[in-house]
Amino acid sequence: MFEVLKTNGNARRGRLTLPHGVVETPVFMPIATKGAVKTLSSTDMEKLGAQILLSNTYHLLLRPGLEGIKKHGGLHKFMNWSKPILTDSGGYQVFSLSKLNKTTEEGVTFQSHIDGTKINLTPELSMEMQTAIGSDIIMQFDDVAAGGADRERHEAAMERSLRWAERCRVALIVGAKNFLPQQFGIIQGGTHVDLRERSLAGLAEIGFDGYAIGGLSVGEPREEAYRIVDKIAPQMPVDKPRYFMGGGMPEEIVHYVRAGVDMFDCVLPTRNARHGTLFVWNIDPENWQPLAGEENSEFYSQLHITNEKFSFDEGPIDPFCDCETCQTTSKAYLRHLFQVQEILALRLATVHNVRFYIRMMERVREVGR
Amino acid sequence: MFEVLKTNGNARRGRLTLPHGVVETPVFMPIATKGAVKTLSSTDMEKLGAQILLSNTYHLLLRPGLEGIKKHGGLHKFMNWSKPILTDSGGYQVFSLSKLNKTTEEGVTFQSHIDGTKINLTPELSMEMQTAIGSDIIMQFDDVAAGGADRERHEAAMERSLRWAERCRVALIVGAKNFLPQQFGIIQGGTHVDLRERSLAGLAEIGFDGYAIGGLSVGEPREEAYRIVDKIAPQMPVDKPRYFMGGGMPEEIVHYVRAGVDMFDCVLPTRNARHGTLFVWNIDPENWQPLAGEENSEFYSQLHITNEKFSFDEGPIDPFCDCETCQTTSKAYLRHLFQVQEILALRLATVHNVRFYIRMMERVREVGR
Repeated sequence: MFEVLKTNGNARRGRLTLPHGVVETPVFMPIATKGAVKTLSSTDMEKLGAQILLSNTYHLLLRPGLEGIKKHGGLHKFMNWSKPILTDSGGYQVFSLSKLNKTTEEGVTFQSHIDGTKINLTPELSMEMQTAIGSDIIMQFDDVAAGGADRERHEAAMERSLRWAERCRVALIVGAKNFLPQQFGIIQGGTHVDLRERSLAGLAEIGFDGYAIGGLSVGEPREEAYRIVDKIAPQMPVDKPRYFMGGGMPEEIVHYVRAGVDMFDCVLPTRNARHGTLFVWNIDPENWQPLAGEENSEFYSQLHITNEKFSFDEGPIDPFCDCETCQTTSKAYLRHLFQVQEILALRLATVHNVRFYIRMMERVREVGR
Repeated sequence: MFEVLKTNGNARRGRLTLPHGVVETPVFMPIATKGAVKTLSSTDMEKLGAQILLSNTYHLLLRPGLEGIKKHGGLHKFMNWSKPILTDSGGYQVFSLSKLNKTTEEGVTFQSHIDGTKINLTPELSMEMQTAIGSDIIMQFDDVAAGGADRERHEAAMERSLRWAERCRVALIVGAKNFLPQQFGIIQGGTHVDLRERSLAGLAEIGFDGYAIGGLSVGEPREEAYRIVDKIAPQMPVDKPRYFMGGGMPEEIVHYVRAGVDMFDCVLPTRNARHGTLFVWNIDPENWQPLAGEENSEFYSQLHITNEKFSFDEGPIDPFCDCETCQTTSKAYLRHLFQVQEILALRLATVHNVRFYIRMMERVREVGR
């Protein structure tokens, strides 16, 4: 169940009730690719205020596999995470990670990037795998056109994605045993507004519990993504959650919230952390007020902790941050840990960046109260 | 100050009062090589019950360096650890890690294994560095003979170590400003009892706050190390702490406790953890009673978490363990994290193994009550 609690222009504050708990939106979903957010435990994610995690069907299909995850009794139990989980369909990773993938109307045949095993991933198998995972939100399996594809390819991929959306809906309903998880359709069509609108109309006709905008944040100019989302998000069903897949930087997320999007995921906070790039507030996140002399800047900036200038900086990464890293660690010490290649550096940096994104969304919701 | 609270044969339970706190002995000191126990934070170490950490002068001399650690105001502040720290002298690492090292009576000239910088490490520089670190216990700089060295080399190294011990004692006293840290001498002499006895006598004549047995756990047969420690430990001053450097497996530590040793360090719990080798109790650590059918086995065993047989083992690593990993993680999930090469695996395994060693010592002290 999804309730819109308040609106402000196109932006909405909402509440999504799922089998494993209630999610306040707009929400950021940290990515537990292979059943763990890189460097962090489920206990850590709970402490950081994560409401829902995203995990990748493709990776879990390879290891522990469909039969494996069934025997484990689902991902919640396996990773000891009691709150909601959303899984993607595997479509995107098949194209970006696997070797020798071949798409037909039936599905995608690919070789595992781990051991070369040949796997035939169909809409039906994706639904079976996501059901076995025990996801609270199951994404449809979609045909993903490459970033630089032409209109014709985008149109074909969008139309095939619609046909697969219908197969996914049927497969999920037929396969459901004890309860029917929520299922989201994915709007495709590249940067072509008319294709996006046809995609949305087709999905709405099938009827999903939520709708996602896919196929953006794949290298296109930011303005193109903004143009599509500004146009499409307000047309998406008002009574269903709206999910922008795979993006992006903090200001992009805020832009999409203003356009009416409710859910986000992104690898940036975790990936940047592992490269020593940390997000810091340029405003006081408690009152969203610009700091003295910072009126014209972005609400955040990035800091490269390995920079020489932090060698003797005894302050925390961010005086406004309430994460464990900022409570216990100086910039100088964190820089040292990166310099001497201590694994601990990756964890401390990740804790901070994930907390930054989660706190940003807490603040976005607060503004919407 | 060191008090022996109780004895049982040669074994002792004691209390060592240091500038940063009281250490109950026998004690295991986890190794924070470069200013962090690999994969773990100072907060983690506190939660695991660590009373004192060991850090390596050699590594800290390379980064952040002598001037660096001075500017940081010492290691306690730098790594945010409020309890005691012991530092080794750098001698051992110079031989095992550096390139082109050359020993003269003055000290050891070596090339940094990081950037090739030439460094002349003398007893005096080692004392200056350890003082800058702010160690609670400063180890003398010693000349370390290679594992397979002959008696002549062991004798020469032992005698040079004695001369360096005197220089270290003088340098520390002369260099001390606000307070005089505790300083330990290191008994050398390989597996030659008479050399060991001469080394001990020489050190005792100089007078240290504690004495260590060095140059064992370097590849010699275990029986040789047992023979030396059984003979030497009871001869060490009864009113000073006794430290066995660099060893070893749990049963070795228990053996050395029985011989009268009070302090231990070892890389095994952390290194084994990163290779997926975990220590588990074969007894109930609360009452040290053998489990049914286990009467004749060691009090612990090792488990290789990547073993296929743990694929669907939903139990914790060790039902007797009270660490966070065992409270939250199944063997199957930890195995999965190792299989998919998640960094989190290393941390979860390290938490468990360090806790095993610390709890073993808690139990050893309990037995001595």
